[in-house]
This record gives sequence, C-alpha cells and structure tokens, in this order.
Amino acid sequence: MNIGVLGTGQVGEAIASALIKKGHNVRMGSRTVNNEKAVDWMKRSNDHASIGNFADAASFGDMFFLCLNGNVALDALRSIDIEDTRGKIIIDVTNPLDFTHGMPPRMLEGLGNSNSLGEEIQKALPDAYVVKTLNTVNFKLMVDARQVNGGDHHLFFCGNNPDAKNKVKHFLVDNFNWRSDHLLDLGGIESSRAVEAIVPFWVLVQQSIGTPLFNFKIVK
Amino acid sequence: MNIGVLGTGQVGEAIASALIKKGHNVRMGSRTVNNEKAVDWMKRSNDHASIGNFADAASFGDMFFLCLNGNVALDALRSIDIEDTRGKIIIDVTNPLDFTHGMPPRMLEGLGNSNSLGEEIQKALPDAYVVKTLNTVNFKLMVDARQVNGGDHHLFFCGNNPDAKNKVKHFLVDNFNWRSDHLLDLGGIESSRAVEAIVPFWVLVQQSIGTPLFNFKIVK
Repeated sequence: MNIGVLGTGQVGEAIASALIKKGHNVRMGSRTVNNEKAVDWMKRSNDHASIGNFADAASFGDMFFLCLNGNVALDALRSIDIEDTRGKIIIDVTNPLDFTHGMPPRMLEGLGNSNSLGEEIQKALPDAYVVKTLNTVNFKLMVDARQVNGGDHHLFFCGNNPDAKNKVKHFLVDNFNWRSDHLLDLGGIESSRAVEAIVPFWVLVQQSIGTPLFNFKIVK
Repeated sequence: MNIGVLGTGQVGEAIASALIKKGHNVRMGSRTVNNEKAVDWMKRSNDHASIGNFADAASFGDMFFLCLNGNVALDALRSIDIEDTRGKIIIDVTNPLDFTHGMPPRMLEGLGNSNSLGEEIQKALPDAYVVKTLNTVNFKLMVDARQVNGGDHHLFFCGNNPDAKNKVKHFLVDNFNWRSDHLLDLGGIESSRAVEAIVPFWVLVQQSIGTPLFNFKIVK
C-alpha cells in the first residue's frame, strides 16, 4: 500500500519507519522537501521510503497519517490539493495542545470543548474520511501495542464513516499489533472533542507514574 | 466521624448511605431542610443519619463531600458560613458538565481548559483543603471499588495539601474498598482541569460499552 505520513517528528518517524518495515511504500511529507529530519530518515530507511512536501505525501498515499503539531496542522493542510484527498482515509493523530501556560497543558484556543482539531481537519478536507485515533498513546506504543501489558489495553476511534473506521481498525491490527477487541468506536468526528481532551490528563498521569509507556485499559 | 454530604442526588445518597453503614454520623445537606429526597433518605436510614440545609451539613461535618451538580455547586457554597470550613477537608466529587448541546457533553462556560470547578471551589473556601476525586467513576463504584474488576483499576486525586490528600486516600481505602496502590496523585488543585475534562470521554465510553460500571486501569 502507498501511504503518506505528514510530519517528521517522533510520531511521524515512528509510524513511517514501522510501515516501511511492513513492506508499505511510505512518503514522508514536510513543509519543505529538503527537511533535514526527513532526509535523514530516508537515508536510514529501506527503498520503500521516499520524501516530499505535504502535498506530495498526500497525493502519493492511498491513505495518509496526520502527525503534525496541533498548532500547525490546519495550516499544513492548506498546501494540499483537496482533489488528492477525495475518498481517502486520513488517520488523524494530532492533538491541539498548548503548553505555553504550564501544566496541565490546555487545548488551543477555539479547538476545545465545543470544537476539536479532528472536526476542523474533516471540514478542511470534506471529501476525505478522517478517522481520529492513536492520539491518546505514546509514539512507541502507537506502532506496537504489545509494548505495554502485552497489548491488553484500549484505543479509541472516532469518525463519520463506519467503513473507514473499520478499515483503520484492520490496518492497526495488521500493522501495529493492536487487538481488534480492544479498539473502541466512540462515534462521529465530533467525539474528537472528548478524545483530544483526555490528553492533558494523559500528561499528568505520565508525570505521576514516571513513564510515557502506559495506556488505559477499560475494565468492567 | 461526623461527615457532611452536600447533595441529595444519586451520588450524595450513595455516599451518605455507605457512610452511615460504616458507623459514621452523616448529615445530608440540601437547599431546603424539607427536601423530599433527603427526608426520604433519612426515613430509610439508621440513626447515624440526619438532614439539614447546606450550611448545617457543612457545619456538622469534620469533613464534607460536595456531591452537587456542577451548575449549582458554587451557588450552594455561598450559603455556607466560611468559618465552618476552616481546616476541613472537602472531597469534591463535582463535574462542571453541560449536556444542553447534545453529545459529547461540554464543560460549563468558564470552567474548562484554563479553569475548573475544583479550583473555583478552593477559591470559594480558601481555608478548607479541597481534594478532587471520585468524579471519574459511577456512583456505585465510588462507594465500593470492588464493583468493577475486583477493585483493580485507578482513581485520581488532586489538591493543594499533601496531608489532606493522604487522609482522603486512607478514608477511601478504609470506607469504600479502594486499593491504596491504585490511587494516583495528579498534583495541585489546578489539575482538576484535566481530571474534570476526561468526564465527557467517560460518557462516550459508557455509551460505547453499554454500562456505567467500568473504570480505567493504568497499565504499563
């Protein structure tokens, strides 16, 4: 499968690297094609790896991951040809966090409570199927659920298209070792509000227990 | 111990009933002393139960629980004599939720992201030790942690006074069957922002799994 990964940070690199190892063709997209981190990643990668700008990566992928900082994600999407996103699944890993006011972090102005980054991304790319997921776990765990408690913990999904959510679930099971019965559908893309809003809590738990390698398991 | 319980809803009744069974003297407080639910509760209870208005319950308790709806909690506190709260522990179970806009619920205007109900309660009662906890679980689980997964799941605390948090932890272990190593300190009362903000997410999980009798277990 051809997959775009927009973003060159820890999350983008972890996802891109995991996917080329699985045999997918991955194009990592950044603002400028000669982005140092992207160039460095490609040098260290196998021949399934390529790089480009955001528009290249979106165009290349049959689907693509959004792994951008919350404060630049919407701006980055403006450089994409919207026609290149028609009918494509977009896995939205972003969080609209604002760390500038200390702890706990806040949601960026206008992107909390009555709105979310997931919804804004869906509005920006109306012909794509945005699925919000993976945003509630550390990047190492995203690409290998077994890193924590043998994979026995939960991941949350939301998005407007049930078929797209189903495909993403299968994708995460097949590629990142998530357990299919541990993937919880929380509704339409407006549920991004609630799923993004738990991330400040996640940050406090990380501080309290001293490791980012943890997750929430729903127990009954 | 003499304990006040402010609020006559499911949460207040569950807590008050559990405490009189443990032998504590409990005064349930409501806006008016002849509140039907409070009168009914006292009739069904043992002689450790008494009722009064909010001020009576706060004055009676060596500590007290705040079990009010988020949209009336601050108003209710205005009827309390602030001198009656000096040096007392207040266990704040409130959530500033607004269900008037559909799902997911929102945080009440002015009480999300850069503020919280926990912080406002501490500001309203500056000489009391406010400890935010229990607000992330169903009322049946609050008073008996073993109702879910044998008690193997987590509860979160925040508050400005370490000694008060410690006393509340012991209280919950002794009275409500919480496990001491499953009680996570998330910092000062400003962490209420993050702890209150996960409740809309809790509501979506409840909808998805079909029961309010669940909790989050932190797994590493």
